[in-house]
Amino acid sequence: MHIQALPLTPEAFAPFGDVLEATGDFRLINEGLCRRHHDRALIDVADARPGISIFLAEPRALPYDFSLIERHPEGSQAFLPMHQNPFLVIVSKGPEATPQAFLTNGAQGINLHRGVWHGVLTPLHAPGLFAVVDRIGTTPNLEEFSYPRPFTVRAPE
Amino acid sequence: MHIQALPLTPEAFAPFGDVLEATGDFRLINEGLCRRHHDRALIDVADARPGISIFLAEPRALPYDFSLIERHPEGSQAFLPMHQNPFLVIVSKGPEATPQAFLTNGAQGINLHRGVWHGVLTPLHAPGLFAVVDRIGTTPNLEEFSYPRPFTVRAPE
Repeated sequence: MHIQALPLTPEAFAPFGDVLEATGDFRLINEGLCRRHHDRALIDVADARPGISIFLAEPRALPYDFSLIERHPEGSQAFLPMHQNPFLVIVSKGPEATPQAFLTNGAQGINLHRGVWHGVLTPLHAPGLFAVVDRIGTTPNLEEFSYPRPFTVRAPE
Repeated sequence: MHIQALPLTPEAFAPFGDVLEATGDFRLINEGLCRRHHDRALIDVADARPGISIFLAEPRALPYDFSLIERHPEGSQAFLPMHQNPFLVIVSKGPEATPQAFLTNGAQGINLHRGVWHGVLTPLHAPGLFAVVDRIGTTPNLEEFSYPRPFTVRAPE
């Protein structure tokens, strides 16, 4: 089954998490030379602390086939690209639902809310380098589900 | 007075904070397709919570003149570039000390430890876009100091 990737917008992504970008309200700091778009992500980690890790993922290409989704029941997870290339974001309302795919615009990060089903990190260009803000804990925090048939994500038209 | 910017390394930066980059130990995740460099930053916020903000700063150029340094006594502050351009990092052991300047390699973020004196955010290329992980609180968290004479940061030789 094919899924068409859509441009990532805060409105479309709201059921899944936050879009982290330099739009909307800001405070001017540093004598007017810097805009601070303040506190854009709902960080939510249970029985643990949030931390910053660095992910380096293999680039993928569109069309992209997948069947696996996963979620972290104990914490939110933010992906902050350390580059200006669009990357693919796959999310789902659950194993019973058809997944949705979004393509970032090259100046957007995302924060997946706690427990949201999502695909693995899928950069489309090298280097697939991201800073990740998520739960640093010692107890289990991963559930996986494989759809019985793969989905194929197509590029936006 | 002139300061020579040096390449940013974890060893040289250790008195001031963490270098956030895809080097050293990692865990393979996502069926071997992603390296997770785990928990690289000391997040330390007092009487508050950490959050993610997006900063958009005007690009500067080298040589770069400055006299102002600042610090946040109540919290650490991580700067994660959302691009692959080097940026300038100015830090100081205090108002009595001569500041030091570092230049990132285009694949490094930094985390300033709580209370470390530093210059304002100084990208060298547009867009000066960064994700920032710092203290989200309502009580004061800024001290500023101006050196009596400006310093000029020169590019590495």
